[in-house]
Amino acid sequence: MIKTGIVGGTGYTGVELLRLLAVHPQASVEVITSRGEAGRSVADLFPNLRGHYDLRFTEPDVKALCQCDVVFFATPHGVAQSMMKELYDAGVRVIDLSADFRIKNIATWEQWYGQSHACPELVESAVYGLPEVNREQIKTAQLIACPGCYPTSIQLGFLPLLEQNLVDSENLIANAASGISGAGRQGKVDLLLAEASDSFKAYGVAGHRHLPEIEQGLRAIQSEACAPAKLTFVPHLLPTIRGIHSTLYAKLKVEGGDLQKLYEQRFQGEAFVDVLPLGTFPQTRTVKSTNVCRMSIIEPQANGTVVVMSVIDNLTKGASGQGIQNMNIMFDQEETLGLSAPALLP
Amino acid sequence: MIKTGIVGGTGYTGVELLRLLAVHPQASVEVITSRGEAGRSVADLFPNLRGHYDLRFTEPDVKALCQCDVVFFATPHGVAQSMMKELYDAGVRVIDLSADFRIKNIATWEQWYGQSHACPELVESAVYGLPEVNREQIKTAQLIACPGCYPTSIQLGFLPLLEQNLVDSENLIANAASGISGAGRQGKVDLLLAEASDSFKAYGVAGHRHLPEIEQGLRAIQSEACAPAKLTFVPHLLPTIRGIHSTLYAKLKVEGGDLQKLYEQRFQGEAFVDVLPLGTFPQTRTVKSTNVCRMSIIEPQANGTVVVMSVIDNLTKGASGQGIQNMNIMFDQEETLGLSAPALLP
Amino acid sequence: MIKTGIVGGTGYTGVELLRLLAVHPQASVEVITSRGEAGRSVADLFPNLRGHYDLRFTEPDVKALCQCDVVFFATPHGVAQSMMKELYDAGVRVIDLSADFRIKNIATWEQWYGQSHACPELVESAVYGLPEVNREQIKTAQLIACPGCYPTSIQLGFLPLLEQNLVDSENLIANAASGISGAGRQGKVDLLLAEASDSFKAYGVAGHRHLPEIEQGLRAIQSEACAPAKLTFVPHLLPTIRGIHSTLYAKLKVEGGDLQKLYEQRFQGEAFVDVLPLGTFPQTRTVKSTNVCRMSIIEPQANGTVVVMSVIDNLTKGASGQGIQNMNIMFDQEETLGLSAPALLP
Amino acid sequence: MIKTGIVGGTGYTGVELLRLLAVHPQASVEVITSRGEAGRSVADLFPNLRGHYDLRFTEPDVKALCQCDVVFFATPHGVAQSMMKELYDAGVRVIDLSADFRIKNIATWEQWYGQSHACPELVESAVYGLPEVNREQIKTAQLIACPGCYPTSIQLGFLPLLEQNLVDSENLIANAASGISGAGRQGKVDLLLAEASDSFKAYGVAGHRHLPEIEQGLRAIQSEACAPAKLTFVPHLLPTIRGIHSTLYAKLKVEGGDLQKLYEQRFQGEAFVDVLPLGTFPQTRTVKSTNVCRMSIIEPQANGTVVVMSVIDNLTKGASGQGIQNMNIMFDQEETLGLSAPALLP
Repeated sequence: MIKTGIVGGTGYTGVELLRLLAVHPQASVEVITSRGEAGRSVADLFPNLRGHYDLRFTEPDVKALCQCDVVFFATPHGVAQSMMKELYDAGVRVIDLSADFRIKNIATWEQWYGQSHACPELVESAVYGLPEVNREQIKTAQLIACPGCYPTSIQLGFLPLLEQNLVDSENLIANAASGISGAGRQGKVDLLLAEASDSFKAYGVAGHRHLPEIEQGLRAIQSEACAPAKLTFVPHLLPTIRGIHSTLYAKLKVEGGDLQKLYEQRFQGEAFVDVLPLGTFPQTRTVKSTNVCRMSIIEPQANGTVVVMSVIDNLTKGASGQGIQNMNIMFDQEETLGLSAPALLP
Repeated sequence: MIKTGIVGGTGYTGVELLRLLAVHPQASVEVITSRGEAGRSVADLFPNLRGHYDLRFTEPDVKALCQCDVVFFATPHGVAQSMMKELYDAGVRVIDLSADFRIKNIATWEQWYGQSHACPELVESAVYGLPEVNREQIKTAQLIACPGCYPTSIQLGFLPLLEQNLVDSENLIANAASGISGAGRQGKVDLLLAEASDSFKAYGVAGHRHLPEIEQGLRAIQSEACAPAKLTFVPHLLPTIRGIHSTLYAKLKVEGGDLQKLYEQRFQGEAFVDVLPLGTFPQTRTVKSTNVCRMSIIEPQANGTVVVMSVIDNLTKGASGQGIQNMNIMFDQEETLGLSAPALLP
Repeated sequence: MIKTGIVGGTGYTGVELLRLLAVHPQASVEVITSRGEAGRSVADLFPNLRGHYDLRFTEPDVKALCQCDVVFFATPHGVAQSMMKELYDAGVRVIDLSADFRIKNIATWEQWYGQSHACPELVESAVYGLPEVNREQIKTAQLIACPGCYPTSIQLGFLPLLEQNLVDSENLIANAASGISGAGRQGKVDLLLAEASDSFKAYGVAGHRHLPEIEQGLRAIQSEACAPAKLTFVPHLLPTIRGIHSTLYAKLKVEGGDLQKLYEQRFQGEAFVDVLPLGTFPQTRTVKSTNVCRMSIIEPQANGTVVVMSVIDNLTKGASGQGIQNMNIMFDQEETLGLSAPALLP
Repeated sequence: MIKTGIVGGTGYTGVELLRLLAVHPQASVEVITSRGEAGRSVADLFPNLRGHYDLRFTEPDVKALCQCDVVFFATPHGVAQSMMKELYDAGVRVIDLSADFRIKNIATWEQWYGQSHACPELVESAVYGLPEVNREQIKTAQLIACPGCYPTSIQLGFLPLLEQNLVDSENLIANAASGISGAGRQGKVDLLLAEASDSFKAYGVAGHRHLPEIEQGLRAIQSEACAPAKLTFVPHLLPTIRGIHSTLYAKLKVEGGDLQKLYEQRFQGEAFVDVLPLGTFPQTRTVKSTNVCRMSIIEPQANGTVVVMSVIDNLTKGASGQGIQNMNIMFDQEETLGLSAPALLP
């Protein structure tokens, strides 16, 4: 059994980890920390877990965490970097669901997140936990920087096009929409049912923190010869609980070519990427609660612009599920272990 | 492995059976029938099942169904009774999720369902598949009449009060609300998102088909000496996909008595009934996708009227999940097998 | 033109007043106060009002309010009572949408609201602003205590039955459900779209603050000879933005009697109460944004229990719309002025 | 008073016309036709209109319609063209909300709508009813082809950029999302609350019927010298009742230029176009039930791609409200008459 610890388990990525680990046959949750809820029963805060856990939140304690085989950070940015050195030096493996170790350029990170980085020395050693790109490095990594939700959906969607250098990489567009759980479990007026339901809006258009992460990821995919990817990224807020739908646009550099086949071949063998048959399009509900990224590709009206639609569950493949996928890879388990239940429908 | 067949798999109880059986370690789906969709791939109709089934709908064929260990009917009323005799005589075990064999009094059934019963001779032998009441008979039953969704929620909620004869049984009230999937997967204007979302209404107030089933069930629970249960039942339509919330009212015959303890003791050991701590109330989302019935009991203002709140997922404990619970019992499996994943939250 | 002022205009009853007054042909908004948003443009906080108001929030200032013909309080309880004496003595007419002056028994108010009443001397002179009951007193009142949302829906629903002494008044049941805007515009986790949508729950079952208000109102309706009304009141939270649906239950004391006719006759001439034809039931969406209370009455299965369904928009007939209805009456305007637009559908 | 008739009043644009005309001070509804509902009371089918209309649906009858000053077609495509000649020759003015007379090129219309055009001779004389572009022609038009919902939102959004020839017109992108009422009041499984809520998807990506209408409209805006507009148009289905949000992308041909000012100046004086302050973005709920198109413009990261967000209510500015705006212009009324109530919020 893989002994896991969770730092900051009171948010949505925390409870999603707990939900998934509750039925994972090779992992147990030994420690879960929360400053605010220390002493409270996990099942009291999250009644869906009644009968599944006999566990209480505790104050963060590095010593206790060091007893674990792997520690997940399900915290806002800034927390993981403040505790990482000690855990790292103790040899604990860490899967950080926050943004702390995703961006290689420290200055870029500091600019977008508005604070100094507390542990720049470990950024380089962090492996970006997108298994479809970095599976080999993940196997042996000690520190995983788990990708953000938008970045997962968008990078996977552009992947075959950029790897093959088929599009004008300097004018990429990602029009994405996220369910409201992406904003976290916090009492903000904008996130109220009375404010956000039966409505739709764009936000963060001037610059969303996921933009530098996505561009870094896209550039890592490209061959050396290509012009570095530049992206216009417009996120929107969906009146749904979960789900990200990214609609990607790029100008094809050459005509012809069987894009459907390209996508099917690239993701053949990937358990968590599902390319839909030509002419059908993904719905976010078909991946809700699952670790699957489902996608379609089409060149409408043969007009030279390719459109990719890519959907994930922002809390699963976009966060905690991908974290567990990384854990499975790191601990030499079947990659799909504990992640194979189909989505609820309806 | 238990070989299962499903008749009428294109509705919501059908796809729910498929979802649950996809991860059941001791059951396989061998046959799934649909007149309308014969030849079509299951995963094509229900894209959440892509990668989980390599199965196509076929025309209903009793011979093929007779190769199964157990056959589920996920059909509108009237279908199971038309095929039952042949299956029964062939020795196949059947779990009927429809209303065909639930009501013992044939005349009552025919009055409420507006048609002649095509197989009255097997009604008596059918076991009402509410495990918390009839577990022993279920073990050896050949034909299970699986309870309706409202009836499950309401009977479990009233159970301890009626068994102990604590309330005025002739003036029971069940104010219940169901998610819209209870109305089935059919293109009716009333069920459109544009009509039913952001709204709430009662329906079927003059008389809902579940009323005679509930009253029959409540009377079966009562001791002989009691006045037969009579119920005022008002169902409402929730703007949610799943979930039933029943709010039950009854006049206490005697004061005092620890109702909380009564409920906890009655359901102790029941894996799928969860009595909440005093003063907390159930939410439908905490049972969504699960086979759990979660409930609370309170006597507000100590005014002599007891209030029970009882929630289930109408498609799981209210239909397909309970069907599989019955199957587990019939085939001597752990009762919770394949039914233990926690609900999604958020 | 009636010059109006609004105290506490940043909540949902505040913006609803602004929406309705924007198209009221005989009223203008002169002052709107908010400590937290002083200086901010109304249309900046509420973008639906862009182009309708050239008005900014100001610090509360009794002198400025005294220039108005009528002042609305759209504040949490406790605020109106702290400013009332000064306004009252200045002769300003006040319509208080909060609970401060609804309950005649000061001790009862203090018990349920958990604080001392700051202005008990004016409670007696306050007129309970339910026009269908107190129209005459409203005409000349200086201080209106506008009814709560649940109380409006429930009192109107029980009105004819209690006036005529037709039911067992000591065992009334009100099973009510409210859209989430009833909880106000405040950043609480429970009210998030991610928490409250696609779910349903009861709350405040042990005792909701509207209970004493409703019982007081019901008793005021009853003839002297009757046993004082006692109510079991169970509120629920709907995953909708607006709307209250109350399902009322009472035991009939005598059989027979044409309840449909009784309701139609009682509310004949009431512009804002609409009794539906027998056998049809109200939906909350058909009153959304309107001041209408729509209701149905039925005795299901002729079993001696009468069921009334009564729907309102909690922010309109349940608060701000009723406030304006009161204003129209007080200032000798057509009662429906500014309140006659039909509901949006779909 | 303007006497109006409505053909096909049982759909969502029909009930929206009825809602708006119920409070229009200078218009009355004299006739409303429906084959399927002839004889039925309007308020029986649409209970939000109880108390507002004493009108019944009648069989379509050109003679009765000829008594009206103006006839609205709120029908699926194909109906208006079959009745138009007779009405036109009788001198009746017509506002067609359907697609029948929008596209000037008959072959294009026939290709996209899959049928022969029954009245090609009147297509040329039809005025495209987008007042912000064609106000002068609308004044004297006999036949108005009212724009589609997506086309209204998208054309208004691109208008200043194309008029000024500021962008690469051959590579325009419109990523749009519509509330489900855009699909009409029809009982299709895909539109059920159980299927469409809590989800999001693209549809019609290969080619949506609004594409040729939008391209025709965009080209009409452009100066002669420009390369004809070519659009990649991807519509999506929102889990909301109403609302269209279009996110438009275009490559700027020149740097610099104050786009915010350009938009503000272009739409200055337009009562129904509201350009938001720089840095704020529109929400569909702020235009729900109104005739307003609210928009923002931004060039994120100064990267050469301009993004316009444009929201409307698909049934109001996207259909019936725009129809009434046209009527007001045609009959020399204040353009905003009957269209000035603010949106509901929350």
